[in-house]
Order: sequence, then structure tokens, then C-alpha cells
Amino acid sequence: MQIGMIGLGRMGANMTTRLLRGGHDCVVHDQNPDAIGRLAALGATAAASLPALVDALAAPRAIWLMVPAGAVDAVLAALTPLLQAGDTIIDGGNSHYHDDLRRAAALRPQGIHYVDVGTSGGIAGLERGYCLMIGGDQAVDRLTPIFATLAPGAGAPPIPGQRSRASTASQGWLHCGPHGAGHFVKMVHNGIEYGLMAAYAEGLNVLRHADIGRQAHAATAETTPLRHPDLYQYDMNLPDIAELWRHGSVIGSWLLDLTAAALATNPALSGFQGRVSDSGEGRWTIQAAIDEAVPTPVLSAALYSRFASRGEDDFANRVLSAMRHAFGGHVELPGAESSENPAR
Amino acid sequence: MQIGMIGLGRMGANMTTRLLRGGHDCVVHDQNPDAIGRLAALGATAAASLPALVDALAAPRAIWLMVPAGAVDAVLAALTPLLQAGDTIIDGGNSHYHDDLRRAAALRPQGIHYVDVGTSGGIAGLERGYCLMIGGDQAVDRLTPIFATLAPGAGAPPIPGQRSRASTASQGWLHCGPHGAGHFVKMVHNGIEYGLMAAYAEGLNVLRHADIGRQAHAATAETTPLRHPDLYQYDMNLPDIAELWRHGSVIGSWLLDLTAAALATNPALSGFQGRVSDSGEGRWTIQAAIDEAVPTPVLSAALYSRFASRGEDDFANRVLSAMRHAFGGHVELPGAESSENPAR
Amino acid sequence: MQIGMIGLGRMGANMTTRLLRGGHDCVVHDQNPDAIGRLAALGATAAASLPALVDALAAPRAIWLMVPAGAVDAVLAALTPLLQAGDTIIDGGNSHYHDDLRRAAALRPQGIHYVDVGTSGGIAGLERGYCLMIGGDQAVDRLTPIFATLAPGAGAPPIPGQRSRASTASQGWLHCGPHGAGHFVKMVHNGIEYGLMAAYAEGLNVLRHADIGRQAHAATAETTPLRHPDLYQYDMNLPDIAELWRHGSVIGSWLLDLTAAALATNPALSGFQGRVSDSGEGRWTIQAAIDEAVPTPVLSAALYSRFASRGEDDFANRVLSAMRHAFGGHVELPGAESSENPAR
Amino acid sequence: MQIGMIGLGRMGANMTTRLLRGGHDCVVHDQNPDAIGRLAALGATAAASLPALVDALAAPRAIWLMVPAGAVDAVLAALTPLLQAGDTIIDGGNSHYHDDLRRAAALRPQGIHYVDVGTSGGIAGLERGYCLMIGGDQAVDRLTPIFATLAPGAGAPPIPGQRSRASTASQGWLHCGPHGAGHFVKMVHNGIEYGLMAAYAEGLNVLRHADIGRQAHAATAETTPLRHPDLYQYDMNLPDIAELWRHGSVIGSWLLDLTAAALATNPALSGFQGRVSDSGEGRWTIQAAIDEAVPTPVLSAALYSRFASRGEDDFANRVLSAMRHAFGGHVELPGAESSENPAR
Repeated sequence: MQIGMIGLGRMGANMTTRLLRGGHDCVVHDQNPDAIGRLAALGATAAASLPALVDALAAPRAIWLMVPAGAVDAVLAALTPLLQAGDTIIDGGNSHYHDDLRRAAALRPQGIHYVDVGTSGGIAGLERGYCLMIGGDQAVDRLTPIFATLAPGAGAPPIPGQRSRASTASQGWLHCGPHGAGHFVKMVHNGIEYGLMAAYAEGLNVLRHADIGRQAHAATAETTPLRHPDLYQYDMNLPDIAELWRHGSVIGSWLLDLTAAALATNPALSGFQGRVSDSGEGRWTIQAAIDEAVPTPVLSAALYSRFASRGEDDFANRVLSAMRHAFGGHVELPGAESSENPAR
Repeated sequence: MQIGMIGLGRMGANMTTRLLRGGHDCVVHDQNPDAIGRLAALGATAAASLPALVDALAAPRAIWLMVPAGAVDAVLAALTPLLQAGDTIIDGGNSHYHDDLRRAAALRPQGIHYVDVGTSGGIAGLERGYCLMIGGDQAVDRLTPIFATLAPGAGAPPIPGQRSRASTASQGWLHCGPHGAGHFVKMVHNGIEYGLMAAYAEGLNVLRHADIGRQAHAATAETTPLRHPDLYQYDMNLPDIAELWRHGSVIGSWLLDLTAAALATNPALSGFQGRVSDSGEGRWTIQAAIDEAVPTPVLSAALYSRFASRGEDDFANRVLSAMRHAFGGHVELPGAESSENPAR
Repeated sequence: MQIGMIGLGRMGANMTTRLLRGGHDCVVHDQNPDAIGRLAALGATAAASLPALVDALAAPRAIWLMVPAGAVDAVLAALTPLLQAGDTIIDGGNSHYHDDLRRAAALRPQGIHYVDVGTSGGIAGLERGYCLMIGGDQAVDRLTPIFATLAPGAGAPPIPGQRSRASTASQGWLHCGPHGAGHFVKMVHNGIEYGLMAAYAEGLNVLRHADIGRQAHAATAETTPLRHPDLYQYDMNLPDIAELWRHGSVIGSWLLDLTAAALATNPALSGFQGRVSDSGEGRWTIQAAIDEAVPTPVLSAALYSRFASRGEDDFANRVLSAMRHAFGGHVELPGAESSENPAR
Repeated sequence: MQIGMIGLGRMGANMTTRLLRGGHDCVVHDQNPDAIGRLAALGATAAASLPALVDALAAPRAIWLMVPAGAVDAVLAALTPLLQAGDTIIDGGNSHYHDDLRRAAALRPQGIHYVDVGTSGGIAGLERGYCLMIGGDQAVDRLTPIFATLAPGAGAPPIPGQRSRASTASQGWLHCGPHGAGHFVKMVHNGIEYGLMAAYAEGLNVLRHADIGRQAHAATAETTPLRHPDLYQYDMNLPDIAELWRHGSVIGSWLLDLTAAALATNPALSGFQGRVSDSGEGRWTIQAAIDEAVPTPVLSAALYSRFASRGEDDFANRVLSAMRHAFGGHVELPGAESSENPAR
């Protein structure tokens, strides 16, 4: 079917490519003319402006936004006046579901439909397909051909225990509920993602330091000596262990596959500084959990580790050092106290 | 090759079955004669006693123990006097790696080899193969045929990004290091497993309570009203969502496959009380992490949730209520305060 | 000075009593006539209705609200039309500071001042004085006599290290900033309070279970036996230990004083069920921290423990049990697994 | 009474001074002759060597060790051969209670008593007195005069709710139980201390960042913009707020007194780097809690924050960045992403 695509960054370009391969008629726009040109070369119809994009689409239109969450409202403000009743806007980015509810209500008087789609799959989605978590009204139904192409579909490798049900979930896309439901499910998906990632990262860090008994530690009243250095004499091969776990263990996953691949080519992960960004959904998951009074200690701990990785715990730590100095006269040890050797 | 197997419970019986299918000569023993009989019917050699098992094996022997961690030392005490220099004992259960180091040292003067094998795969391992994390000396090499059969092997479904390397890791088994290294890696594996499981469980719990805005909450000075009930009006279909995430999302995993299967047949998981056991490795992972000064907030939170699920936080909670009563005159609300409806 | 007080519950009645003792002229109202009567007997002017209260106060009026956070907006809706430019409303309850900002903006066109006061002190505040965290514009200045009486003042017992400064902080009240600043500081105060309380509660729980080595535990493949029962043979006297810590230790505090008093009269805290409420500020603290990207693992953990104490983790725990059943065939152990003996 | 004191560092010297002031006869030794000289100048008997110290004490001797935990066993090895049956050694440092049990058992055949004393009070203890948590056999009784002098005693300022009981707890010292009980209670004391400290530190960090809405943040797909900058416009005066809370609030404590004093003289705590040491007891508390299956999420989070403050989370964070790069092509943002301005 015909669809407009606004936003041809990493995700939007790949998704458009997958739609073109699936035989859809894509009209594309981006702030960057080069991005438009690359998709046009693959068969998309180029639109140099929003009006041009709207003009190139037959009513009732379907226009997919794949722009940063912080840019959606500006695009809507420019786009909406060009549309007419019956058209549908799909927000496929990482919007907060609160915004979906607000936007759907704002567009309703004009008869414009709003569909929120949480999209997972990353840069592998071009080949694997995208997992689509969808919220909205009956306008969702009309978009079935688009969802079916973007999602992995029945061609996905068979997985043990797969159910055969009427639901499209087994195709990798699902109408999860009314407005906001798609991004709500995506929000929680990313919250879980943070937890999974942190679980692997912490475990690998424990393995990496299994040689701590070999290191000399000065005994001072400030630090406790390792009581049993003989128990920590292991030099663990992390690339091999990550690879091992991919085969038959309980903790196999796609994230582990990626981790094993990263470690295989760069065992010390030396190119990374360990300043870990977060893109919002993890935060919103915790804030929703707290509204619901649902305890989420694991998901929170994962989020906080990211904050701390960026130095956001700095003042709190200085408060601790100040307290220790006040009650015990303790003076901070210099930086070499860490057991992590950057040169390693 | 020939191997003795002691312990024919859920894991031991399946592993023996897989070894028999692989053409190995298995001599089996268990406290339960019926368990021996079932394996004998599949082609194993029955041994009614430990001496009988030892007699039935040609030196140098290889004897695999698959008994509860708490029972290993008793079996070793009975078994060791029957063995001779050059024999090898494999502990495939969930022993603490500290015990591996102790046992290997105790057996060394007799010339008996000790190999520790962390075994993952659960009840699916019979068909999928087992992921084997192995520690020990050169005795490990002699056992290659056994490991190759138990592990998934090259027959495992191809996974994107798989490396072709000299390591056996890609076959699902790995000699991780000296004594204790196998159970150390398995320990961390299970620590990670707890974290992964908790991440899914917390996220699904957030989805389940996405309808909290529909519930009437009495406003009292003791509790805070939900500020925006309109934001929590979703009735999420957890079986469909879990199934959805299996297809193309970043959080796909074998644990998610199992979760989706469980929810598909029992969406409310009504048969479970939510008293979650832990079998030791999660605890040991945290204790090792603390020895190493490695922060593991996610893995710890997952472990503590299990403790709390069994009521181990009860006294701490009563301390909190006592404090609240003391400073604010607060009286505990009755049990109905929970938003979880058991009848649901 | 003259002040109106609306809301004569546990906090409001005590605060009015303290104001009357301080020589202030209090006009009081509550939905419950008996509550009005009790304060009138102490010298307050009874007001049977909001109009009566407003009439009894000379302009410019100062009216203090001490009602549940969920009831403030309704009181404001009824009260505001009766007021005139130059009057001041003080919200001394546990409002979210977001509401302060909204209300101050709504009242501004009418020339009505709004002051938000976070009030700490609990039922001991009547004698000890209340710690007042204040937000608002210059209307705060006019209320100095009220704050000075409610706060502990210079009569508070001298504390080592006390600073002599121009700030009123050392008197126990402080104008913290513009609208909302008072409740923001109170919000964080309560967030800290949750963390402090949980720290004591967890530590006391560790002491209480220091006898776990004396208990018989069945060894099964489902649970790990205690490795060194000889290390857990202590029968700790919690009332004595809590009392001990009050004298010269680093962890002395008013919360510890209250805890020691509670344990002294009821060592097992047997009257409490351990279902711990939360009244909002702890939640808002975490939500603000997340907006700020400030890691608050301790404050979050304290909040989540309260949620879990009320069974809000129930579904998550059942997910864990379902997963364990799926991959390992594990069956939940019955309730007796907990080491906490209710009859103790 | 007469007592030997070995170890005249910060703690030992102050404790000896307090004992001398209390009229006790102190024989003192340290590796550093200057330290001995300073105490001799206050009236102590100098002992240039361990034999000299033993010779100067009348049997049955009482010898107090105040040396780093890692040095105790070496001192015992040198000291024990010089002693005779009936003598008592007191370990007043921060030993692990496991070591107390081992040492008491090792000394028992010689008839030498061993008493473990957890000592809290820090550098303020000289004037305030020390809180003493004591484990051991009947030898404890003989030391009553020493404990009574070191502890705050009845002269401590009266605290509301203080109980009048037969226990010495209200004097600031307590025989908590058999060998190891003193250091067990001290261990948990310090575990709680870490939790309390972290609660204050996190809360103050939330206040410090209450101005985050004033900062310009670039909107990218990598980061989420602050949704409501208008809610974070506060410039909080931390020294005043910490001072305020000391007067009448629920969260008053000695640690808060120290924090307020530190902030008063150095609001930005600019001299500290925020690399927070830990001296063992916090770790041991968690390890004991896990043995007991007692959930301690708050105490653990406090410990892990210290680990992370020293960079021990570095590799785990690089794993996260590597995963993000693998699935989403995300590139780490440069260091300026942190909202903490070191120059502030």
C-alpha cells in the first residue's frame, strides 16, 4: 500500500527499505536531502517538503513519523494543517505514551487518526524484521499490510513452544490496545531491556575480576584485605564464556549473541568509556511502576547504574566522603584504589 | 566411552539418556532402584551399589556425580576409598566452587582427578543438549567424547553472528580453567539468570497493573491517591505481549520463550503462590562480587526479591510499621490495600 | 498573631494547641464538630463553617490548611471565593509540589498568596516543635511569628557543631525558595526518612536471624543448605542492642530512639503485620530523581520494600515460579520455608 | 584498673586518653615510639616492646588491641607466647567475627580469654564516649570498669523515651553474647551506617539537582529531553536545609549533625573527589544477610554505590555501551553529558 515516511535516520531509512522490498509505495521526506536521495535511489518517491509529501499521497493518507521523540510535536504542528479527515499519522519513534494520549485527543476533532507504534529491532531489523507494539483505534486495521511487512512475519525461524493462535503476535506485530498502549508496551520492553543488559554486564564484571586474588593490596585501616585470595585466582576468557552460554544454557538470548560478538572482536571493550546513555523509556517505566505501586528493584538498579556511569552520583559520593572525614577523620584514598586497570 | 553415573534424578536421568543415545556405555547408580531400572531399560548397566558401579568400570574410571550439592561430600566419602590413582570424578551438580578447590586438594594425594562441571539446560537439555562449564586439570581432555555428546554441538541451530573459532565454546562446552572454574562460571551464569528472570517478571508486573486507574482508591491521609488515573486504563494481554516480544524484539531469549508458553496456557499463573526458591548460586555470586568489590545491584535485587517472596522481610517490615506508629501514630491498613486481586 | 486553621486531625489539632500556648489567636474549623469543640476548650475561636472562619479573621487573613493532600483542592475551591486580595493560604500538609505551583498560579490573579509548608515532627511535635520547610513569595515574611512558635526554636537542646548563623534554620524553620520549594524539600526529607527507616529495619532483621544456624533445614535440590551453621548461633537481644546504639554510636538518631522504645515494650513487634503504607513523598522523590537523572538506589529500595510488604510483587513472583517450573521442573516449596516463625 | 593498650593510632590514642582521665593505669605500646611518648606524657606507662608491656602488667592481665583488622593475627602470634592462663586479650578493632570465633578457640587451650569489642564513636568518642558492643565469655565481667569509663555512661545527655532498665545498654556498653557477638553487632551497626549515610547523600543530591530545568540540554535521539523544565527551577541552599532538618524533623541524627557542619564550612564539598572507601563491615553484613536469606536491598545499594564511586563498575558499563552499539548503532556521548559541573 501507499505510505508516507518522515524521518530517514538510522531507523527510518532501514524501515523504508524493508517496506520498498515488500512492494509498498513509499513517499519519503527528511530534513537532509541526501537521506531522501538514498531512499529515492531504492525506489521511493522523494518529497522535498511536507506539503510535497502530503500532495504525493492519496487520501486517506497514512504517514509514518520516525523522528526523535523530542521533535514529534514540531513535525505534527507543521504537518497537521495539511491533512484532512480520515488521514492517519503513525508515530513509530520513542514517544512517551502520555504524549500519545494528548496528541490523539488533539487530532480527534479534525478527524485525523493517530497510531502509536513502539518499534524494536535496532539496526538488525532491516533483515530480521521489526517487532511492532501498536496502540490506537480502528485505524490500526487499515495498516495491516505495512505492519505485516515490517514485522518478522511467519518467516522468522521457528522457536520451541511457539503457539499457533489467531493473534498476530506470532508474526511480530500486535494491536496492544487504545491510544498509548503501543508506546506503553514499548516503554516496558525497554525497561526490561535495561535490566537484561545490566544482568549480563554485572555477571561478566564478576568474571573479569575473578583474578583479584593475584593482585597485591596494601593493608590499611581504610580498606579491608581480601580474606581468601586463593579463591580468586581465575583468569577467565570472557569471549569464550559468552560464546559458550549461547549454546544450550538457560541464559541464551539475542542480547547475549550481540555481547559475544562484541567480546570476540574486542575482549577488553577498549574502545568504550562506559558512559551509558538512556533514551527515556527506562525512566518512564520506573515512574509508571511507582504510580502503580509495583516494585521494580531490578529495572531501577539498571537505570541508576547508567546514571552513575555518567557521574551523576558525584555529589552524593562527596557527601559520603565528607561524612567519613567528619566522624572518623578518614581521608580519601587516591584513584589507584580501583581494581580495574585501564591499561589491561 | 565408558562412564559411571551416580544420581538419576531429573537431571541425571536425562543426561544419561542423552549419553546412551550418543553411543556411550553408561553404568548407573541411584539410591532409588526404580530410577536405576528405568535407565537400565534404555540400555544402561545397572549398579545396585557404589562398589558394584566401581567394579563395572574399567580403570582409569570416569564417574559423574549428579546429586544435590549438599550430598556430594557424603557420596565422595563412600566412593573415594573404592577408587584408584588415575580415576576421575566429575561433579556435575551445583556445588560451590569453594568445595571444588577443597575436594580437588583432598583427592590429589590419592592421584584421583576431580573435574567440576556446571551444567545448564534444565529439562529441555535432553533434546537441546546441555551447556557445560568445566574446571579441572588435564583430566578434562580425556572426557571430550562425553562433553561433546552432552553439549548441543554443531547441530545447534545457527545463530546470527556465530564465530568460527578453535574453541569448543561454539559446541556448547568449554574448559574454563583450573579446579573450581567450571562451577565459578556456572555460579555467575545462575546469578545472571536470576537477574534476567526478575527483569521480565518486574516488567510484566508493570503491564499487569496498567489498569490501576480503573480501580477505586479511598483517599486517606495514610495513602496517596493516584494523581492521573486516566493514564492507567489499559487492560494488557500478557500472553500476546510475551509472544510478540519473541519475534524481532531486542529482548528475545529462551527465558522469554518459556514465559510466553507459560502465560499462553495460564494467563493469570493462578497455580503458583509466588514463593520463589533459590538454590545457592545466586547467593554465592553476590558473595563473590562483594569479595571482588564489584557492584552487582541488579543481581542482588533479583536475589532479595526471592527472599522477600518467602516472607524473609517480615520482621523488617514490622520494624517499619512500629516506627511509623511511634512517630506519626500511623496504624497499618488492612490487607485489602494491595492492588493485586487474588480472585482475578 | 491571628490565624485560621482548617483541619483539626492529629497534626492540625496539635499544631493549633502549640500556637495557642504561644499566645496566638486561632480561629479553627473542621468537618467534625467535636474536633472544633476540643480546640475551643483550649482557647481557640470556633468556626462552624468556612464562611464563619473567614468572617472571624481580620484582613489580610492567614489561613492554614492541615488536611489530607487529596482534599486540598476541594477546600480551596470552597474557600477561595470567600477571600480577598492580600489574604494568604498556607498548605501545611503533604501536597505534591507540582500542585503548589499550579495553585499559586491559579490564585495569583485574585491577589491571594499561597505558601507551601512541609511540616515534620509527627505526634512529638506538640512538645518538641515542628520542623518547617517553607516555599512561597514575600507573604512568607508576614508569617514569621507563626513559624517561630511552631518550630522548636532556640529552646531546642544544644547539639554539638551547631552553627550560629543569620539563617532561621537553626530555629527549625526556613524559607527554602519560591512556590513549591517547601514541599520539594519536605518530599526529599521523607524520601530520606524511608531510606533511614529501611536501613535500621534491615540491620535489625539481620541480627534477628543470627540464630539461623540453630534451625534444622532439610537439604533438597531446591534449596541450598547453610554452609556454616556454627557461624549463626547468636540469640541477639534486640531491645538492648537498639538501646545500646543510642549511646555514643555513629548511628544514633531520633528514629533509633523511637525504635528502641518500641522494641523495649514489644521485642517481637507482635502487634504489627508488616504491611507498610507510603504516603506519596517517597514516590515523588524517586520520580523527581529520575527526572534529574540522579541515582537513588537506596531511597528506591526502601520504597519498593514497602510496596512488596503489601503484596504488590505477587504477580512478579508467580512469573518467576512459572519460569522455574518451565525450565527446571521446579515446584514451589510450601510456606514453611520461611525462617521467620510467627509464633516466636 | 590496670590495662595494656597495643595500637595508639587515631582510635587507640583517644581511648587511652579517656581511660587515663578515668583514673585507669594504662601500659601502652605502638610500633611508633612517638605515639608511645605522647601517651606517656599524659600519664601512661610506656612499653617499648611487647615483652616490656607484658612484664609491666600484673596477672591476670587485660590487654586491649586497637590495630588494623589485617594486623591482629600477627600481633597475636607475637603476644600470645608471652601470656599465661587467666590473661585476657581484647580485640577492639574492626575484626570479622569469623576471626573472633577462630581466635577464641585457638587461645582456649592456653587458658587465655578472648573478648571482642566493636567500638563506635569515631574521633568524637574521646569526649562523647564510645559505644561498645562486646562478645565473649565471663572474662567480660572483669572488664566492667574499663567499659564503664570508655562508654558515654549515665552522663550522656538524656534522650526522650530512655528506658531505665537493669541492662548496661543505657550506659553505652553491652555484653551482646558469646565470642564474636560483639563484632557481629558492630558489623551490622556499620552496615546500617552505610545505609543511613547513603540515604542522606542521595537525598541531598536530589536537592542539588533541583535546578536542572535551568540547564540547556540538546535534544538528540540518544537522550530524552526533560519533559517539564519548569518543575526544576530551584536553587536549594544545602547548608541551610541540612541545618534545618536537625531541628525537630523526623530525620535528625548525629550523622546529619556532621553533614550539616561539613556543608556549613564547604557547601560544594569541593575538597573531596567522591571516591568512597569501605572498611569491611558493610561487605560482611551483606554476606551474613545472604547466608541468613535476609533481604537487605538498602544496605547493599549503599555498599555498591561505594564500589561504583571507585570505578569498579567500569567494565560492566563498557559492556552496556558495547551492547548498545551492537543493537542500535549507538555511540557514546562525550563526558559533558553529566549534569554535575565540577567547577560549580
